[in-house]
Amino acid sequence: MTSALPAGTTSAPRPTLLVLDAEPPPRLGRLTGRVTIEHADASTLAERLPSADVLLVWDFASPAVREAWPGDGPRPRWVHTASAGVDHLLCPELAASDTVVTNARGVFEEPIAEYVAALVLSMAKDLPRGWELQRRREWRHREGLRVAGSRACVVGSGPIGRAIERYLKGLGVLTALVGRVARPGVHGPEDLDRLLARADWVIAAAPLTETTYGMFDARRFGVMQPSARFVNVGRGQLVVTDALVEALRQRWIAGAALDVFEREPLGPDDPLWDVPGLIVSPHMSGDTVGWRDELGRQFVELYELWAAGLPLPNVVDKQRGYVPGH
Amino acid sequence: MTSALPAGTTSAPRPTLLVLDAEPPPRLGRLTGRVTIEHADASTLAERLPSADVLLVWDFASPAVREAWPGDGPRPRWVHTASAGVDHLLCPELAASDTVVTNARGVFEEPIAEYVAALVLSMAKDLPRGWELQRRREWRHREGLRVAGSRACVVGSGPIGRAIERYLKGLGVLTALVGRVARPGVHGPEDLDRLLARADWVIAAAPLTETTYGMFDARRFGVMQPSARFVNVGRGQLVVTDALVEALRQRWIAGAALDVFEREPLGPDDPLWDVPGLIVSPHMSGDTVGWRDELGRQFVELYELWAAGLPLPNVVDKQRGYVPGH
Repeated sequence: MTSALPAGTTSAPRPTLLVLDAEPPPRLGRLTGRVTIEHADASTLAERLPSADVLLVWDFASPAVREAWPGDGPRPRWVHTASAGVDHLLCPELAASDTVVTNARGVFEEPIAEYVAALVLSMAKDLPRGWELQRRREWRHREGLRVAGSRACVVGSGPIGRAIERYLKGLGVLTALVGRVARPGVHGPEDLDRLLARADWVIAAAPLTETTYGMFDARRFGVMQPSARFVNVGRGQLVVTDALVEALRQRWIAGAALDVFEREPLGPDDPLWDVPGLIVSPHMSGDTVGWRDELGRQFVELYELWAAGLPLPNVVDKQRGYVPGH
Repeated sequence: MTSALPAGTTSAPRPTLLVLDAEPPPRLGRLTGRVTIEHADASTLAERLPSADVLLVWDFASPAVREAWPGDGPRPRWVHTASAGVDHLLCPELAASDTVVTNARGVFEEPIAEYVAALVLSMAKDLPRGWELQRRREWRHREGLRVAGSRACVVGSGPIGRAIERYLKGLGVLTALVGRVARPGVHGPEDLDRLLARADWVIAAAPLTETTYGMFDARRFGVMQPSARFVNVGRGQLVVTDALVEALRQRWIAGAALDVFEREPLGPDDPLWDVPGLIVSPHMSGDTVGWRDELGRQFVELYELWAAGLPLPNVVDKQRGYVPGH
């Protein structure tokens, strides 16, 4: 009588998947038996990173990866972040390493585009003021703006910017897209000021890089029309916030909506809560019912490719700071 | 030496155009020399109607025409109202007469469709609650709904309903249109309850007629999903308002937005101002910058046709109470 392991259990060592988050992400159960899952938080990440094969950055607001990255030492071969932006994790050592970084491209584009459409239409139809008048029980008729025929300048030509462009065009908005370099369908930075000067809607949807840091400053708000409205769904640091506040107070522009901020969350004493003409929301433009599940599902799909040795999609250009596109 | 009138001044009698409004509408200057313009208000309309050839109902919220219509006596041959709805002016005597009634079809459709899109997107993205949280300086992340893939039932298959359908479909909403009778692309009333039962968005955009009066009653709100939102941009009397308020209070439905009311304007003591989940706006969904000018321009165009003896567009079926369409 011989004893043998059942077929298929002759074990290659299981990869270690380190998850940066207190809560277990959904869908990882699908990897049961094939991967060893460990969890880390900001305080334990540095200690656990060297022994991990894969790092899943689930707590995508945390700067812990940048702070804990092991430099030349042993390190994960692959880092996936459950976010579109990668500014929170890229550090020079990670950028210089051969570790592959992927992002959640594909999950947030359409929700964010819907959110931007909601903001643009709401501002055109004066809905925020309507809610204020309702609270004061005041019947005051106003004239809305037509959205069709108005002009938008969308800054950021990645998949989020392109989805915003598609939605706005669907509403009849004449929309120009501005990217890092001019190419068919995309304006280069050399056209930006000219486009800003005639836009009714300026939408910031660029990744945060050295080039885009603080790009919406006093000079650029000064170029915009007094009737222009500015929306930021990219990263807070794209905007010099004090300059925006001043532009609103001086009525250089007619309004703005910020979903992202230099420091998040805003504290209750933050002066941004009640700047005239400013709509503030808590970094939620891309987050729709089921989004966490969708992010978990996406990671599992990428993991299957990685485990099979197949090429990964959504690979970040670590020098540029985003997934290069079309 | 002979004296003669310059050519072209041999005068056919000038038609009398009676305008129901205190303010002169824009663009009528174009008719100078060809028409005698008189103005009337509710108190003088009955006295002036018999001698008018054309009545322009510019104050479209006034029921004065219905009250002052001269029955069998001398009366205008043509009545034009600067509105989409004609419920405010149709009376049995006018309906039975050979007086032609036209409306402002073509002016309000797209603005109203944009307004409905603004409301749908705002509710999906929880913007009204966002503004309330902003006022309270509370950073509270929420998950929005995807609009694409949701279901709408648009009640009213005239040009306004069809424009709303077009905009919602453009946002990826699965949209069904319900009209007075089934025809290609339009459901008949026999499908209404089934469509209401699965709609995320129920949009009322029907004309006010005997059939549609009070059609949104307790039973119909009871048929809707607890997650459904109801929007009325038609006429206030389409809705049994008390039943809607009760449906919101009992959470039979998740929310509603009313732009029209049984009595307008709402007074400061009206209980509708602070029903939970109810958005109230002052009958402005179709009114965008330049709308009065557009209405004046449209009337002048129709007047040119009428004066030339040509057929008028936008002729209301006075029995049905709207312009019959496709």
